[in-house]
Amino acid sequence: MSTRVDVGIANDPADRSYPIFVDGEPDAEERFAAELCTRLPAGRIGIVTDETVSRLHLGRYADALRARNRRLTAAVVPDGEGSKSMARAEELCESFAREGLDRGAVIVALGGGVVGDLAGFVASIFLRGVSYVQVPTTLLAQVDSSVGGKTGVNLPAGKNLVGAFWQPKLVYADVTSLATLSERDRVAGLAEVIKHAFIADVELLARLEDCADRACAGDPKLLEELVAWSCEIKARVVGTDERETTGARALLNFGHTIGHALESASHKMPEPLRHGEAVGLGMLAAARVNRALGGVDLEPRLRALLSAVRLPVDLDPRLSHEVLARVAVDKKRGGETLGFIVVDEPGSARVVALAPSRISEILLGIKSR
Amino acid sequence: MSTRVDVGIANDPADRSYPIFVDGEPDAEERFAAELCTRLPAGRIGIVTDETVSRLHLGRYADALRARNRRLTAAVVPDGEGSKSMARAEELCESFAREGLDRGAVIVALGGGVVGDLAGFVASIFLRGVSYVQVPTTLLAQVDSSVGGKTGVNLPAGKNLVGAFWQPKLVYADVTSLATLSERDRVAGLAEVIKHAFIADVELLARLEDCADRACAGDPKLLEELVAWSCEIKARVVGTDERETTGARALLNFGHTIGHALESASHKMPEPLRHGEAVGLGMLAAARVNRALGGVDLEPRLRALLSAVRLPVDLDPRLSHEVLARVAVDKKRGGETLGFIVVDEPGSARVVALAPSRISEILLGIKSR
Repeated sequence: MSTRVDVGIANDPADRSYPIFVDGEPDAEERFAAELCTRLPAGRIGIVTDETVSRLHLGRYADALRARNRRLTAAVVPDGEGSKSMARAEELCESFAREGLDRGAVIVALGGGVVGDLAGFVASIFLRGVSYVQVPTTLLAQVDSSVGGKTGVNLPAGKNLVGAFWQPKLVYADVTSLATLSERDRVAGLAEVIKHAFIADVELLARLEDCADRACAGDPKLLEELVAWSCEIKARVVGTDERETTGARALLNFGHTIGHALESASHKMPEPLRHGEAVGLGMLAAARVNRALGGVDLEPRLRALLSAVRLPVDLDPRLSHEVLARVAVDKKRGGETLGFIVVDEPGSARVVALAPSRISEILLGIKSR
Repeated sequence: MSTRVDVGIANDPADRSYPIFVDGEPDAEERFAAELCTRLPAGRIGIVTDETVSRLHLGRYADALRARNRRLTAAVVPDGEGSKSMARAEELCESFAREGLDRGAVIVALGGGVVGDLAGFVASIFLRGVSYVQVPTTLLAQVDSSVGGKTGVNLPAGKNLVGAFWQPKLVYADVTSLATLSERDRVAGLAEVIKHAFIADVELLARLEDCADRACAGDPKLLEELVAWSCEIKARVVGTDERETTGARALLNFGHTIGHALESASHKMPEPLRHGEAVGLGMLAAARVNRALGGVDLEPRLRALLSAVRLPVDLDPRLSHEVLARVAVDKKRGGETLGFIVVDEPGSARVVALAPSRISEILLGIKSR
């Protein structure tokens, strides 16, 4: 019926380990509701979702929970990154408090990355922390953001500057919900799968190269396989390094240092980059940095795969002093070095300490040649 | 030079244990700065304080840290409970982000309970959690709120409805700073010392009865002794029950169920109750409930001690249906029971499950006799 992956948090006497279910069959909401009621049998439920997801999926999820006699309240936030704000988090806490949710409450994040990050943060601070579960409905959220307990909201000064490490009790990836995504959103999610393959699993890389067309087209069986595979990789990494202190979890940032800068810069343009698209371009940039440092040249293989799944590869026109200056600002590091992730060979990544100025020099130098 | 008390968090592989220093000698800021620099040798420092405390103590603390080559920034919030808000927490995070504080940053809470709760909450969410230390400057904060890692802010719907359990790396109680308190504020702090005595330590109770006058008058040596003694009791309780899950920590709520209701109700009056004053009255109410349930009558001994330290004992005129209705609302429990703390004999407390309506019935019944 569904694939189960376990996230085991290392050295955790409180046993905050939790399962991820990847379910590709119809009526996943019924099995989700049964699972939630087994694990968290009591407590009021507060569902957080956005306008689009509430239209598409809220009804069936709410019905499945109500059919099991669970009292629930749903809070619908506007679509988009703008909902990841302190003001919105406060509004949700206030509304849950007025609805009478207590410490036994369970927050359900039903939606993509924005909803998951916001709802997880609300769960971490409401009444000093209540339980929550993730029901990711986008490919990006299923393969990446719903797993690992990173929650947060944005500040005017930058993205994700406020948040908590707060692990869910359960992640339930309903793969059938991906059928409602646009191709562009689906493909953007594939970028994080490609990232997992390059940093940790050469077999997954070969699989992606074999079936790029089917992945792009949204073949449900294949997506189920890729979601479960990605979750296994991510679960392994975050289980050993829950709070990003040992360095293991940092490897998941492959493509993100430059990717974030490109993503931010694109918000001034008529067609902003999706997060996954920016990460794809960021991985290309990281491959160039590795080559310049004397490492192997991964760019051809990476570029071929990105192109095969129809992710953008137009890195050169997007690189500029202005964009690269954001790398230093984003990391709040000034002249110091940052941990930059490079892939030495497919399936194996490491951190190198680099000054942002050195990264700019390399990337703009290559570009001008 | 100073008394040291250790807070050992049970079953904690991450070793979040921390020391509390109770220092009654002049120039405590120098020894604090040395201690901070030993324990947290790197990282930018963000001091959070309020207007009054910044006038009285910020200069000497900032100078002591700067003399040790620490880069610091100070954020001054308005005095009073109004600063415990999500908006203020966001403003502090935004300002620390713009100042360039990173994950290695150390937040210093310099002030009373409001500053400690707010700064601790900011530390728990800024960049998904940074280190912080408590430098409590009121008696209430030194004997109670600075120890135990409960942080939080208020919502329109109620006090402390948002927050985190986030342990400080160090608590440094500068007892000389208490000399700047009014007698009313000092005495309000004694209420929590009396609470600790009644729930956990009959020797402390005898000591308080012996020297109530000197405590009231603010004898520095005696305050140092009482702060250290209170911290020992609180450290023992919170160490075994960090997240208020085993019931041990709940005993610290003695006097608080009715106390909170009286405190909230008094905010509509010309002279609102201090938190400690309300807790004193709440303990009197709890003693009456215990007697009505067939337990011993602690009221005479408790009333005598409260009077001796000049805490208010005018419970009867403050009890009303309206005030007691707040008990149910505060706890968001409707018709269900809540855990009410009673002291069976001095030094020993336990939780009893009571419906808020039963509590009202008892207290209003006694009053009308």
